[in-house]
Amino acid sequence: MTVLYALDLVGTAAFAASGAWVAVRRRMDLFGVLVLGLVTAVGGGTLRDLLVGDLPPFSLQDETYLYLSIVAALTVFASRHRFQAVERPLLVLDAIGLGTFVVIGTTKALDFQLGFLGAALMGVMTCTAGGVIRDVLANQVPLILRKEVYASACLAGSLLLVALESFGTPRPTAALLAAATVITLRLLAIHYNWSLPRS
Amino acid sequence: MTVLYALDLVGTAAFAASGAWVAVRRRMDLFGVLVLGLVTAVGGGTLRDLLVGDLPPFSLQDETYLYLSIVAALTVFASRHRFQAVERPLLVLDAIGLGTFVVIGTTKALDFQLGFLGAALMGVMTCTAGGVIRDVLANQVPLILRKEVYASACLAGSLLLVALESFGTPRPTAALLAAATVITLRLLAIHYNWSLPRS
Amino acid sequence: MTVLYALDLVGTAAFAASGAWVAVRRRMDLFGVLVLGLVTAVGGGTLRDLLVGDLPPFSLQDETYLYLSIVAALTVFASRHRFQAVERPLLVLDAIGLGTFVVIGTTKALDFQLGFLGAALMGVMTCTAGGVIRDVLANQVPLILRKEVYASACLAGSLLLVALESFGTPRPTAALLAAATVITLRLLAIHYNWSLPRS
Repeated sequence: MTVLYALDLVGTAAFAASGAWVAVRRRMDLFGVLVLGLVTAVGGGTLRDLLVGDLPPFSLQDETYLYLSIVAALTVFASRHRFQAVERPLLVLDAIGLGTFVVIGTTKALDFQLGFLGAALMGVMTCTAGGVIRDVLANQVPLILRKEVYASACLAGSLLLVALESFGTPRPTAALLAAATVITLRLLAIHYNWSLPRS
Repeated sequence: MTVLYALDLVGTAAFAASGAWVAVRRRMDLFGVLVLGLVTAVGGGTLRDLLVGDLPPFSLQDETYLYLSIVAALTVFASRHRFQAVERPLLVLDAIGLGTFVVIGTTKALDFQLGFLGAALMGVMTCTAGGVIRDVLANQVPLILRKEVYASACLAGSLLLVALESFGTPRPTAALLAAATVITLRLLAIHYNWSLPRS
Repeated sequence: MTVLYALDLVGTAAFAASGAWVAVRRRMDLFGVLVLGLVTAVGGGTLRDLLVGDLPPFSLQDETYLYLSIVAALTVFASRHRFQAVERPLLVLDAIGLGTFVVIGTTKALDFQLGFLGAALMGVMTCTAGGVIRDVLANQVPLILRKEVYASACLAGSLLLVALESFGTPRPTAALLAAATVITLRLLAIHYNWSLPRS
């Protein structure tokens, strides 16, 4: 599906930029910027592939993801003094990435015969594990565990997808509805500054 | 073996509760409580399965573990203002989990043709890696690397199990002795506040 | 190749010692010293094997690596009050390990049909992921993301190796040149205190 692949690349670049930006703010060197860009972009999908047993993972089978992430990270590093201007617009691309990654991760897990809950979790993991690794490497509590409707937007989308799938909805329809749900929830959460109940 | 499965579920619930409780104390949101509950409960066994090459891991093959962990984590979140009352009794269930996880992890690794040292380490990893990931996500040095006879009780049990196995002891006997060793050591360590030599 | 195996063991012992030493300085207990020694020594290669799909990983197939790492870590723990005297000489052994690990990791990835960029990254990962896990467990931002020409020396070597390989250079020649490049760059970096551009 060519549109899905294009959206996947958009999301990958946005994730790589967000990872590189965390590295810049944490005053890492060029190598750190590259590593955080790469793991944020491909870490979630790679971990999903490790768990469902599809080895080597997508990121080592189609190196486009690696090259794209490196270019995005280098771009952020090179333009780091003007990056704040694009930080907010980038959140929209990031949200598109979220919706795409949920659909790719959840459907892949279903195709690998995982159960509904497992598949939904793999969808969430595809979106979030890269950012979790990024935050762990930057030595901070992962953002998604603390605040913001981010992972929960992914969870809503992946649960919707497995529910629709179990009712026999054709996959393109289910995928489209799930992605739209994730992207809408995420953009609303940014706009209205939503958060989950805290401890 | 039905008794082993029942004990496995008891341990899983106790581990999930301990993970959720760390998340509550670190003031994470509801999603963080779920994630820390899940990774603490199934992280060790999942990493073991990744390493021995049994994919997808147990936690994605039998979703009971996932559902149980989620219920345990939600229960802790809902009763977080009264949780301290059960914190100490929970340590006993946690110790039962340790003994069970050592036996499951070590015997599985032996069945996958690992050597004795590797199998013993997989037994320890089944018990401890979930808690290590929990602490890394909570941005603290893993508890088991710092103090308490916890991992070392597991190591004693898994070494005993591989030693008995190498002497030809029937597995049920070896498993029972190993589990009893781990649970006894751990309960004594809690009672007498034992710790290992420090640097 | 017997020389390569001997150098691999030298590097493994040096890495285990560096991991154990971090644990000692962070005042971990004996178990923490063993864990940090083990993960620093075999973590990178193990993660590489997980990703290329060679399961169980090398460290569970040939337990020599595990025994050697444990002995090295225990030696550091036992001699911790005199360790600083050998800290600097150990950097030379560590550099030899780097060169060896780059060659082993990159060529293994090429043999598993990875692309050139993926293989080069696997070479770098073999060298660095163990140290990254060590630093994450010690709750600090990984050293290689912040400063020093360490990972970039590995990257230079692994890129050189895949470039030579793509030009049809015989593997022993390519391996030797790559290892020499890594070791030379690393020793020069130590001597002249080189670092990469920072954010």
